[in-house]
Formats: sequence, C-alpha cells, structure tokens
Amino acid sequence: MSRARAIGCDGGGSGARLALVWDGLRHEVCGGPANVTSDFAGAVAEVSGLLHRAAQLAGVSLEDLRGVPAHFALAGVVDERVATRVAAALPLEGVVEEDRRAAVRGALGERPGHVAGIGTGSYLARQGPDGFETIGGHGLVLGDEASGAWMGRALLKAVLAVEDGVEPATALTRQIAEEMGGVSGIVAFAAEAGPSDFAALAPRLLDAKTDSAARHIIVAGADYIARGLLALGWKEGGAICLIGGIGGKYADFLPTQMQKALVGAEGSALDGALALAMEQDG
Amino acid sequence: MSRARAIGCDGGGSGARLALVWDGLRHEVCGGPANVTSDFAGAVAEVSGLLHRAAQLAGVSLEDLRGVPAHFALAGVVDERVATRVAAALPLEGVVEEDRRAAVRGALGERPGHVAGIGTGSYLARQGPDGFETIGGHGLVLGDEASGAWMGRALLKAVLAVEDGVEPATALTRQIAEEMGGVSGIVAFAAEAGPSDFAALAPRLLDAKTDSAARHIIVAGADYIARGLLALGWKEGGAICLIGGIGGKYADFLPTQMQKALVGAEGSALDGALALAMEQDG
Repeated sequence: MSRARAIGCDGGGSGARLALVWDGLRHEVCGGPANVTSDFAGAVAEVSGLLHRAAQLAGVSLEDLRGVPAHFALAGVVDERVATRVAAALPLEGVVEEDRRAAVRGALGERPGHVAGIGTGSYLARQGPDGFETIGGHGLVLGDEASGAWMGRALLKAVLAVEDGVEPATALTRQIAEEMGGVSGIVAFAAEAGPSDFAALAPRLLDAKTDSAARHIIVAGADYIARGLLALGWKEGGAICLIGGIGGKYADFLPTQMQKALVGAEGSALDGALALAMEQDG
Repeated sequence: MSRARAIGCDGGGSGARLALVWDGLRHEVCGGPANVTSDFAGAVAEVSGLLHRAAQLAGVSLEDLRGVPAHFALAGVVDERVATRVAAALPLEGVVEEDRRAAVRGALGERPGHVAGIGTGSYLARQGPDGFETIGGHGLVLGDEASGAWMGRALLKAVLAVEDGVEPATALTRQIAEEMGGVSGIVAFAAEAGPSDFAALAPRLLDAKTDSAARHIIVAGADYIARGLLALGWKEGGAICLIGGIGGKYADFLPTQMQKALVGAEGSALDGALALAMEQDG
C-alpha cells in the first residue's frame, strides 16, 4: 500500500509539523500554530510555508509536489465546509480533515482499536472494520471530560466546596486555596481563565494521587473514558491506546480488563497523516 | 425596633426597587438594572434617580432624607472596597451591601433560618443567632450549582452524552437535540451562551419531571442544596425558605426532613432592605 512519495501534515493549536516522503526519504519540518478555526489565514500560511520548506529540503520545487498524495490533519476543521475552504486555499491538492483520524492512525498503526486522546482537551475514537468514529470533546463548557482543563476546573470546584464547608479539606485543596487567595482569588481566576489556564493545574492534581480530592477527580475522568470506550464498542481484548499529554496518567485508573488491553502508541499524528496519505490510492 | 422613617433599596441585574417609609407611609418606586460591578455609574445613577422620585412621592426634598436610615442592597457589591466606593457616590448616607442579606431578611423576617436563593444563579444562606452567612454562587464556570443556568447547561451535557452513545436517549433529550441541530448546533450555542441563555432551558427541564434525564439533574441540584444547607448548620426543625425564580421547584426533591421545614417567604428583598434599614439603630 505504501508508496515512495507522500505528504503528511499535523497542524494544531500549539504547532504544526509536516513530513514529505520523496523517493523513500523522509523530510520533516515544523512551525507555528495551525488552527483553521481560530486563525484561518494564519493556518493556511503556516501550512503553505511548511510545504515550501519541505520541498527545499528534498531539493525539489513546490510544482514538483503536484500530484503527490497529501493528508492535511488540521485542528479546527469542524465540518466539510471548512475542509473545502482550506483545501481551496492551500497551494497543493490533498485531503483536509480534522486531526483526530491521523492521531488515531498514528497511534494504532493499521490495527483496529480504540484511542483516548487526552490533553488540554479530550476525545475518544475507534478505528477498525466498522470505520472510524469519534465521540467526546465538544469544548470545556459542555464537555472535554477527563481532559487537563476539565481536571483543573474540577480541582478549583473542589476547593470552593471545601471553602464553603460542603466537603472536607485535603492537603491539596488547602495548598491551592492558599496559593490562589481563597474563594475570591479562585473566582477571579476562573472569570478570566481559558482551557489552557485550567489545564496548567492538572499536573498538581496528577502528582497527588493519594489525595482524596485529586483521586476523586481522576477516578471520575477514568470512568468517563471507560464509559465512552464501551459506547464506541470496545470489547474485552480490543486494543486501547492512551495518547495526548496526560492520556497515560489514566492507565492505572481504568477497569482491569481495559488496563490489560492497553498498548503503546506506534507513532505520532504526523506518522498517521503520512500513512493516510500513502493509503489514499491504496 | 421599627421607626417611622427608613429607606430600602433592592438593586439587581434585571431592575431596581426602592421604598421610602416617611412618617409611617410607604412610597415605592422601581427602575432599571443596578449592578455596580457590570455598570458602576449606571447603577449609581439609577439608585440616585429612585431616591429623587421616592422623595417626590413623599412630598419632600432629597435634603429632607438626610439622616434617614438607609440600606442599599445591590448586586455586584463583591467586597468592602466596592461598597465604600458606592456609598461615597450616592447622594445620601446609608449601608451599602450585596443583595443576599436583604433577600434573606425579607424571606425569613426576623426568624432564624436558612434560605436557598435559586434563580439564574444560586446561593445558600443562614441568618440567626450565629450571624448571617452565605455560601455557594461563585458564578457558572465553577459554581451556581442547582441554578437555572446550571440546569440548562446540564441538560445540554446530557443531550451530548446521548448523541455520543454514552447515555440512553429520553423524550426530552430527543426534543432538545432536534431543536438545536444535534451536536454541532449545541456546541455552537454553548460557545456563545451566557448564564441567562442556559437558564432559558431550565423551564423545559422542570416541566419534564418524569423524564429520567431531567429528573437526574433536578435530583443533583436538590442534593447540592441539601448538602449546602447542612454545611450551613441546618438542623431538623429549622426553617428553610426557597426563593428565586426556580427555588420552589426543588421543594419536592429535598430530603423529607427538609421538606417538613419549608416555609413560605414573608416578604421580598425590598422588604428585607427596608427592615435592615429600620434595624440600623435598633
């Protein structure tokens, strides 16, 4: 199925990477953020620049890349309309998609299985004979359960519950309350905080696994992941891969059968995008 | 304790009311929003205008009102600094406070007891021999549990869980999903929605008490109220008053002992502000 020429791109809110395979050699370049919803023109310019630089690395012109199968996995491609608009704006033809499928393809390789992608945000996905399917995410206001942002926000809620006398204090809630200036400090922080600000608190929580408040939140996140994977059709023995900045932290908190099914990631989302490009005519 | 002259004002985000008792006669006026955090100058102008109009109604000048005990219960008075600034800007001397204490004083009268104030936002409070105390609120991002906004948001989360296949559908989740255009419509709505937008969905939920998704949310809200009132020291037999736009809707969902303790509101927050003014030198 693989071929000697292909282009894969993994673009996200924190940076973009592009790989060009040219006659069997892989040329990789990386650059700034490429989220087509938060900054359409900037994302298109970023990806275009990466294409130029990759062509230079391979010693060819951009024109030479025409006809090479390409897969652009970009954050913010929320629907077909956006995908079409991005595809029209790029200097080369290629498949434009949101970035989940490439991440899953990279993590699982060609195997069927399930993936939990848990970073600042979150999603759950499945690839296999029944096709690719993904659930979850939906943003921090209504979703992103188990994510770093969800975790940090849950920690602050727990601290407020302690300050209000509704829940007992723990070492962690005491520390956070003191650092953030109690209820008024926490409320002021939350009024301005975005997902990444809340997610910055997640490591504190993950480092305090014996703290009952922290443990309660981690268990709730793991419960969401387990329920979601079951909803996506996971059955005993099916491979599960935890990816993203904090996905692996949930390993010890999943049901035993799911722990036994855990596999390491084969590759990155960039590897996945490249693989999807190579499979385009397969 | 009561005296023949007093000024009470209840100012909130949706409107302000002021009552002047002059030689035993009550003169009441109402006007626009008066939230000193969202619009300081506007709130001060609104309250000043109400003072002038009330004086006119009583047939006296604003000068004549000097020395009359006054209680200004205003939304957005988040701390002592803001209270001092508002007091300095008003044309008459008086106590400036956030509006919870007046609402509780109005609801319970002089009795000790507990109050759950549940509207678009929420708070819990106690008045009695141990003083006035309030918990909860904190805004929709981290708190306002059981509130209308919290309810509406929880309903949309429930619909997304159904759409993701994590929870079974109910009649209500099916209706909402259809009306709002499924996952993408709901996510788009939430990206722009403020507390009042979410709260607009609460009546749908409250009208569907036999729906399992709706019931789950109402029970969770009632559980928060019960736990919070216990944290505020409620004991069997102590009066509980449910106020605010949807406070009363929780009556049937509280623990039996709490249901037996429910009392109707004696008066409004305006009545409470007037009572607090009359008690100032008492």
